[in-house]
Amino acid sequence: MADQSSQKPAAQWTHHEIRTAENSAAYLLPKIQSIKQVNPNLTILDVGAGSGTISITLARAIPDGHVTATDVKTDILLRAQAISEQECVKNIEFLEADVFKLPFADGTFDITHCHQVLCHLKDPWDALREMLRVTKPGGLVAAREGDVQTECVWPETPGLVKFHDFIAKFIPLSGGSAMAGRQLLGWALKAGAQRNKVTASFGTWSFCEEAEKKIWAQQMAKIIRAGRIRDTGLKSGFSTEDELEEMAKAWEEWEGTDDATLAMMHGEIIVQK
Amino acid sequence: MADQSSQKPAAQWTHHEIRTAENSAAYLLPKIQSIKQVNPNLTILDVGAGSGTISITLARAIPDGHVTATDVKTDILLRAQAISEQECVKNIEFLEADVFKLPFADGTFDITHCHQVLCHLKDPWDALREMLRVTKPGGLVAAREGDVQTECVWPETPGLVKFHDFIAKFIPLSGGSAMAGRQLLGWALKAGAQRNKVTASFGTWSFCEEAEKKIWAQQMAKIIRAGRIRDTGLKSGFSTEDELEEMAKAWEEWEGTDDATLAMMHGEIIVQK
Repeated sequence: MADQSSQKPAAQWTHHEIRTAENSAAYLLPKIQSIKQVNPNLTILDVGAGSGTISITLARAIPDGHVTATDVKTDILLRAQAISEQECVKNIEFLEADVFKLPFADGTFDITHCHQVLCHLKDPWDALREMLRVTKPGGLVAAREGDVQTECVWPETPGLVKFHDFIAKFIPLSGGSAMAGRQLLGWALKAGAQRNKVTASFGTWSFCEEAEKKIWAQQMAKIIRAGRIRDTGLKSGFSTEDELEEMAKAWEEWEGTDDATLAMMHGEIIVQK
Repeated sequence: MADQSSQKPAAQWTHHEIRTAENSAAYLLPKIQSIKQVNPNLTILDVGAGSGTISITLARAIPDGHVTATDVKTDILLRAQAISEQECVKNIEFLEADVFKLPFADGTFDITHCHQVLCHLKDPWDALREMLRVTKPGGLVAAREGDVQTECVWPETPGLVKFHDFIAKFIPLSGGSAMAGRQLLGWALKAGAQRNKVTASFGTWSFCEEAEKKIWAQQMAKIIRAGRIRDTGLKSGFSTEDELEEMAKAWEEWEGTDDATLAMMHGEIIVQK
């Protein structure tokens, strides 16, 4: 299993696998540290874990605790399992599960977490309600979701402007939101959270240094040239073949530019149940 | 002097005065801590310090060092002086100075810093070149500048959308840039910095909690209803009286909304000379 799944099976995964608890859940880590002081055996559920790099680094942060990482896709969980074995992280298990119907009793986990999951869902508040259900009274639900509309890129070449518009139109078409970050607090309230039990903040991801730019640009060029984003773009009439190629080339050119920067905001919430 | 200047003389200052080194120069503080270990008597120049709350908290971070805080406006420096006296911070001095002609010899300071200064300038690279000049070889130039185009607000009411467009047009009219954050790295290169000597990152400011929303919304309503932004908006034909009132009311309504969020990205650079 490990051999097969340690091959990265989908183009989308490369830039996901540089995510860690440190670079993607920094808003939550101080809370985890505080809880750990009182309860070293705390349990975390990481919903929509994908290839699991955040879940695995969360598990490392709680050596006497336990992480359950779920995703709807089995193949990505095989990849996550393989990474956890490579990294020798033992206090973690992976389970196929639907975020809308989590296979856990009410009040099971100390912390329920997700990252870049709700932004892909049509009814994100229902997912948050389910995450609240499986969290212990007094426990935390934490979420961090991108806000694609805030993506800012330099130099602002025509191909990159086209890509920004393209992706902002693509996300809603597949049932998600290009303005998830700013709405995350509202979604939590709609899921039943009380306003005075929610802390809202914003963080960024940025790709400015050479290695980061390479990961981002090559990934973008790849998904523009093949796969679901390309197919949907063509079918929906958002872009022509020529425009897609212009976008892919624009990312390659951006990678080689000294003053290139890219950043995007993420909304963050911590809800106390 | 203290009595007179402890009155806040301009509407713009309230949301500036909640700025501290911790919330506005977090990207730089670890570097300051490292330098302090080797050289506790380090010197920092804070350019365009305004009412000085960042400069004063920088001075607190280096109790055996010294901060020189400059601004082109004397009245705001009187306010900064008064705050430093109230806060009993002694290792700081305030000086009127033009960022393009700093009254210091080459290589005077260990660190030269600015926050939300370059975004207001027509030739920001010339200011950065001057900041590099007065910095010691091996020292640091650090800057953090907003990127107003990335402002993201929820709920996205018509009055707030109008305000976003209004302010993004207003800033270039007064010689600044509404996309400063993303260009900051490029400006440093234009000022003569080598790419491999610059670290670029992004941070946010956000106003989501009750006290923060109050500060932001009341400030925005005030500057829309009186002062330079209003006058320029009307003279330039960007907005009518009715539209300005719609924007002011939209901020007041936003303040009272439970799911209200506001955030904006800032570009950050640290240049090693």
